[in-house]
Amino acid sequence: MNFAAGAGFTKGFEIMEATNSLRPFFEPREIVVVGATRTPGFGYGIPIMLQQQGWGDRLYLVNRSGGEMHGMKVFERVADVPGDPDLAISVVPAHAVPEVLSEIGERGITHVIIESAGFAEAGDKGKAIQKEAQTVARKYGLRVMGPNCVGVINTENRFTSVETIEESLSPGNIGIIAQSGVFGTVLVDSLPGRGAMLSKVMTLGNRMDVDECDALEYLHKDPATRVIIMYMEGVGENTRIREVLGKVTRDKPVLILKSGRTSVGRAATASHTGSMSGEDALYDALFAQTGAVRANSLEELVEMARVFATQPLPKGNRLGIITSSGSLSALATDVAVSSGLILPALSQTTVDKVMEKAPLWMSAKNPLDVGPSDQYVKALPLLIKDPGIDMVVAITIVPFSVLQKCRHLGLTAESLYGDIAALHASIPYKPLLICAVGHRDYLDHLAEISGPEVPVIASPETAAVTLAALWRYSIWKKNFEPTV
Amino acid sequence: MNFAAGAGFTKGFEIMEATNSLRPFFEPREIVVVGATRTPGFGYGIPIMLQQQGWGDRLYLVNRSGGEMHGMKVFERVADVPGDPDLAISVVPAHAVPEVLSEIGERGITHVIIESAGFAEAGDKGKAIQKEAQTVARKYGLRVMGPNCVGVINTENRFTSVETIEESLSPGNIGIIAQSGVFGTVLVDSLPGRGAMLSKVMTLGNRMDVDECDALEYLHKDPATRVIIMYMEGVGENTRIREVLGKVTRDKPVLILKSGRTSVGRAATASHTGSMSGEDALYDALFAQTGAVRANSLEELVEMARVFATQPLPKGNRLGIITSSGSLSALATDVAVSSGLILPALSQTTVDKVMEKAPLWMSAKNPLDVGPSDQYVKALPLLIKDPGIDMVVAITIVPFSVLQKCRHLGLTAESLYGDIAALHASIPYKPLLICAVGHRDYLDHLAEISGPEVPVIASPETAAVTLAALWRYSIWKKNFEPTV
Repeated sequence: MNFAAGAGFTKGFEIMEATNSLRPFFEPREIVVVGATRTPGFGYGIPIMLQQQGWGDRLYLVNRSGGEMHGMKVFERVADVPGDPDLAISVVPAHAVPEVLSEIGERGITHVIIESAGFAEAGDKGKAIQKEAQTVARKYGLRVMGPNCVGVINTENRFTSVETIEESLSPGNIGIIAQSGVFGTVLVDSLPGRGAMLSKVMTLGNRMDVDECDALEYLHKDPATRVIIMYMEGVGENTRIREVLGKVTRDKPVLILKSGRTSVGRAATASHTGSMSGEDALYDALFAQTGAVRANSLEELVEMARVFATQPLPKGNRLGIITSSGSLSALATDVAVSSGLILPALSQTTVDKVMEKAPLWMSAKNPLDVGPSDQYVKALPLLIKDPGIDMVVAITIVPFSVLQKCRHLGLTAESLYGDIAALHASIPYKPLLICAVGHRDYLDHLAEISGPEVPVIASPETAAVTLAALWRYSIWKKNFEPTV
Repeated sequence: MNFAAGAGFTKGFEIMEATNSLRPFFEPREIVVVGATRTPGFGYGIPIMLQQQGWGDRLYLVNRSGGEMHGMKVFERVADVPGDPDLAISVVPAHAVPEVLSEIGERGITHVIIESAGFAEAGDKGKAIQKEAQTVARKYGLRVMGPNCVGVINTENRFTSVETIEESLSPGNIGIIAQSGVFGTVLVDSLPGRGAMLSKVMTLGNRMDVDECDALEYLHKDPATRVIIMYMEGVGENTRIREVLGKVTRDKPVLILKSGRTSVGRAATASHTGSMSGEDALYDALFAQTGAVRANSLEELVEMARVFATQPLPKGNRLGIITSSGSLSALATDVAVSSGLILPALSQTTVDKVMEKAPLWMSAKNPLDVGPSDQYVKALPLLIKDPGIDMVVAITIVPFSVLQKCRHLGLTAESLYGDIAALHASIPYKPLLICAVGHRDYLDHLAEISGPEVPVIASPETAAVTLAALWRYSIWKKNFEPTV
């Protein structure tokens, strides 16, 4: 780089800083949507979505047809757009993208989200178009997200480059990085409904420029993001991933779901399998060496996100289980123990207090099975306060019919289990999960009384898996001082 | 046995037949509830439940207090009960059970469900009571379910010995065997809400008499039951289980969730239903040798039940996947292939037809990723009709916001994916699952349009696991001629 060229050293440096940062993707000054349309599709939905979220006064629409659309003037060319936009969202067909990027670069816009498909993922012709687009982008120093993605969501300022449901825009602390736009949407549609609110979402698509390392670094520094979840199909030639993952996990957990045994699946349809599973083992090693937490299924990723987003790191691996179902606690125990947790005996003080008014058939073991007694409300706080216990799974099972029929007698989930939200608030340094299986209305009710900080997990095995992951991450993190 | 004694040979034989059968548990002529109460609990809820389900005119209540209850006369002793009852439901405290069993035996009642706890699962004193009760039961040749259980549900005649929600009494084809009453309730509360309707439910508790072998044999012959699901903590000294499992699986799938994989988990179950769960590897071997299908988690058990209850057995292991999300199909493929399924290339005819009007970026591979094209409706029937495909997972992902916002334009799940229920009805011999992850309302909508015969599975990995289990069971079953 020639420091003497361009707008002088200081100005050049500022531009470089701004250009290198991903901030304008999430906090644009003003936005241009190139390829706005009157008919359904991205070019139709995105302008309306932005207007609805309060971005109408910082929005410009571009379409060769000009005229008016969604109550706004439509500019024929990016060059005609007034104001001070720093972000363009391009939804024009792939073949038109290189030219549009030139216009964007000439206009001085620094950041572009390319949402259209038909690039490197779509054969040789698409590959050629992507290469051409990349050349233009580099010429102007553009930061590009995509192509073949849906861009970003920032719940803090309700900026979104993708149509989404209102509840997904409620601020939270989970950051999502997805290569695929559809997969990002899957998470955005399903997480908030389970009480897991989002901070930022990035879908990377073909990663022409912005890749998972950039995304990780951005969310690393993002104060709104407490936990990063990531869907990965492969990092290609990316040699930075090891360094970046290792850096981010010192401060924030990174939960990763990786497919890529896909290629094993495809290879298996041919005659030979062999080598590709070795590749997957390399990812296992990468994650282990960098402190990233690997989820074994989409469901596990989602549940881990809920737990990491709400629970403190445990001080040790000593799990206490309280239950009204011996069967469910047995299932949770199996998985907890095979995942590295232990279930120590309760302290004598806890045992004595638990048994004070307990029926004869009860015994204060771990798991602590209170059966159909009325001892749950009293025993749960005793268990979580036991100095030998680092975290608790509270399995809350009651026949739904009993709750329905005895509501008039004052029997409610609160009367059975106590004020779970308040209990967690009073001992915020020990992870606490509710586990229940049963009628959907019952689970909804439990979620209500447990509050936003205590996840209700609908599987005893998953409850144990998530806490074991939380503990393993705590061990990793203990090695480092915080950097953010 | 002295054949000359009692009511003579023929009568004795009839009694023996009736006594040995479990039929009166599910189809009692008349029922006595011993320990009916005016205050909440089993003794309160069961009589009301039976009245509500139309059994009021075949019901007698017994309580030492006598008087009247729930609009019915209360008899002080079982001996006072008129009519021809063949089933007693005992909800008196454990210590009173031996005496009650004597009364029941003297009255000529042959079958008893003992619901109270406080027996072998509750220490030495409880063990002694159970032994005493067992002696009395044997003296009178009683068939006993329990103690420490909630008995049975029969959806065909709406007979139930446990309070349950109305929707759980809708007839279906899934038979449940659970050792624990609470666990039975968990399944009864959660399965029907997912469209998985029940035929019969049996909770065995401490298995003083009726054990899992009896239960399996009964459901084996039960025409209403197509698939048997079972939660098992251990079979103790039971040496018949191998023979019985092997016999039943020739005709009906038996899906088993067994806890006690770890020694800690096993210890947890010992104090629960008093069962010893033994070395886990032995159970793996037992299940493999007898054709039983082992579920690896409660969630997997439930999803397997839904699939086995509705889908035909596949002719082979050739899976076709169609998807609008490459990521989700990659996750499903990983698991399918590692579970023994293959994803063959599509036949040339299928490829040609799929590609006829497909956009350039699409290619007719397996998984068949139609992306955001409008080709799903056309491609799904082509895929399932492909002669090289034995079963199909249809992954149906669309952003919920798009469906919401474009409903007025005629965009619906039906317009995107076609009439799935009708498609399955037209090709009923190939398993078909829908897989979708996202907003709950979207999943509910998909469940509606897919109909009761096509399960919507909310996890790509589980969809693959269940079909692989279905295929493995089909291999087992091919070895045998049907016996029922």
